[in-house]
Amino acid sequence: MESTVIAGVGMTPFGKFLDRGLTDLGLPACLAAIEDAGLEPSQIQAAYCGNVFGGPVPGERLVAAMGLGGIPVTNVENYCSSGSTALREAAIAVGSGLHDIVLVIGVEKLFGRVSDGLLPDDEDLEGALGLVMAAQYAMRFQLHRERYGTTREQMAMVSVKNHRNAVHNPNSQYRKEFTLDQVMGSRPIVEPGIHLLDCAPIGDGAAAVVVMSKERARREAAARGSEFQPVTLRTVALSSGRNQTELADLTFETITADAGRMAYEESGVGPGDIDVAEVHDCFSMAEILRVEALGLCKPGEYGPLIERGHWDIGGVLPVNPSGGLLSKGHPLGATGIAQVCELTWQLRGQAGGRQVASPRAGLSHCRGGTVYGTDGASCTVAIVTR
Amino acid sequence: MESTVIAGVGMTPFGKFLDRGLTDLGLPACLAAIEDAGLEPSQIQAAYCGNVFGGPVPGERLVAAMGLGGIPVTNVENYCSSGSTALREAAIAVGSGLHDIVLVIGVEKLFGRVSDGLLPDDEDLEGALGLVMAAQYAMRFQLHRERYGTTREQMAMVSVKNHRNAVHNPNSQYRKEFTLDQVMGSRPIVEPGIHLLDCAPIGDGAAAVVVMSKERARREAAARGSEFQPVTLRTVALSSGRNQTELADLTFETITADAGRMAYEESGVGPGDIDVAEVHDCFSMAEILRVEALGLCKPGEYGPLIERGHWDIGGVLPVNPSGGLLSKGHPLGATGIAQVCELTWQLRGQAGGRQVASPRAGLSHCRGGTVYGTDGASCTVAIVTR
Repeated sequence: MESTVIAGVGMTPFGKFLDRGLTDLGLPACLAAIEDAGLEPSQIQAAYCGNVFGGPVPGERLVAAMGLGGIPVTNVENYCSSGSTALREAAIAVGSGLHDIVLVIGVEKLFGRVSDGLLPDDEDLEGALGLVMAAQYAMRFQLHRERYGTTREQMAMVSVKNHRNAVHNPNSQYRKEFTLDQVMGSRPIVEPGIHLLDCAPIGDGAAAVVVMSKERARREAAARGSEFQPVTLRTVALSSGRNQTELADLTFETITADAGRMAYEESGVGPGDIDVAEVHDCFSMAEILRVEALGLCKPGEYGPLIERGHWDIGGVLPVNPSGGLLSKGHPLGATGIAQVCELTWQLRGQAGGRQVASPRAGLSHCRGGTVYGTDGASCTVAIVTR
Repeated sequence: MESTVIAGVGMTPFGKFLDRGLTDLGLPACLAAIEDAGLEPSQIQAAYCGNVFGGPVPGERLVAAMGLGGIPVTNVENYCSSGSTALREAAIAVGSGLHDIVLVIGVEKLFGRVSDGLLPDDEDLEGALGLVMAAQYAMRFQLHRERYGTTREQMAMVSVKNHRNAVHNPNSQYRKEFTLDQVMGSRPIVEPGIHLLDCAPIGDGAAAVVVMSKERARREAAARGSEFQPVTLRTVALSSGRNQTELADLTFETITADAGRMAYEESGVGPGDIDVAEVHDCFSMAEILRVEALGLCKPGEYGPLIERGHWDIGGVLPVNPSGGLLSKGHPLGATGIAQVCELTWQLRGQAGGRQVASPRAGLSHCRGGTVYGTDGASCTVAIVTR
């Protein structure tokens, strides 16, 4: 996939849009990404669409609405990794030489479709046993606290940091700072430790990127007389859940470690090279587990490091400068694409008040499905470089 | 994709299985395909799963159940073309060199999930206007009759033929012959002409194939000391709906013609080279429209040709020797993979009582989504050769 670039990015603000359908949500993001790439819609050769709950053929509906009917369209579902998996398939197609300009859309409408949160699926054994997501993260916090001494305060600081970052993100669902006391004092969801502000909200939204072959992007830039400073998509690694291993140690997320290892191997970019990361913080505890499993610090080190500002926008390795899922929002299919939009803006120096200092390499991580993996789990790690 | 082969195929009988979940349905098909390829499950490097209504991450659930957790899994949805689109993505991945042994699963459970048939989606304008599928095919029959003189009897003969073929297919949902009078006398669904036996049933089922690089398949065959007579997957072309064109002429299916043209160009195999075809006969009228749009005969010629036995198993160009969707059944996600299983058995000479005489090239066609394409439509054409 190293010959592929992120040529254009676009997204719509995440939020609650009861009066807008999936196509209404997706269209502005698609057109923004195409414009950002300096292209016309008619130049798009194929499309991939990541979505979970929107019903059949959301990508074809969007493509028809853009007047691009006829081109190949593939809808991809991998729960919370749907958008990033769509990006993976697009990158494989471009890398194979089949296409050289591909649109990748992530879109989701949760308000009006799911009520108070995501309910367990019919076949979800974990959910049926009462181990809904929030309960699993409370258990994982408890174990992490016992093994490594991670404190409730350190976990709440994840939410404080991500909400603070989001204030500078015009596309964020929430743009409001919260103090440590406010996070810890918010409504308890599952004890210990998982309170309302430790959980990502449900949301509606869309994001899109244009993936191109490096060669075609170079030619297009030359034809426009623009400088060619591409954001290269080095890899989108994909892993699935292995039950036993994760059951063995809930404080270490194997599926994330698997995807991270694959991504580092495939890209030649190691964890020490990463300058900025967007990590799947569906719960405050999730960011801790994932940053550690990705090797961005050692297991147990996340907590002490957040106290020193290590993961802040001005810190050593900024994590979730966009505001993350906790504040920017989490319309499932859109999440993985929105992360790559953020990394692209960061690598181009276009991130405004949340700009990280001169990043050269960015990592984004998505993780979908059940925690134990017995009922299906998916994880992606994408790496982009400038 | 020409360097890819169908190394193994497997399917479960289609039918009504209220007591079996998606994973129960899919597992035997997967294991059969892997065994048919002469492989062990642990050799599978990645999986693609085509499914529409099974909820999130069906592929990961299957892979976890096989003990293959950790490998990349991508779920693909393209309505009735979901399975064949999964095959396309697998072929692209293998063709790109990323993997050389990939499992592709098509699986669907409709009984217990949809009641009397597929209802229109929320955003489906055609459905909201009363133009449900059966109504659209009745209109298309009426126009085709007016323009070309296609008769009710000729259309009913599609159902007679496909039910007759299915008697020899142990995986078929229905294995019972019907006379022309029985088809025409079955319960009217939408007049003119669309009666109960002109419609594909809903069903549950699964099918799987192993896609390999030709080079790896050759090496594996050599290691086993088996002869190497691969079924080559020449292409899986994919198109999406263009509204205006289809609206302009309901007697000619543009989306199918688009996918067919792409498939012929990509594979170098023309319509005149095809020896056997599996074509998406969701309604009897659908087979007529599609065989014509694929260029397997001229528009208006299907009807007179069926009277001469042209499309029979012993005819000039056998269409739907498996029994097609009309009799074999139509568990959406499984359909496109089951078609390729049938073509593989035909090309290998393993189709028993429904064997076509020495075919060298086979074509399979799937078509999903709304007729006008305003609410999303998808179409695939796969070509395999021996």
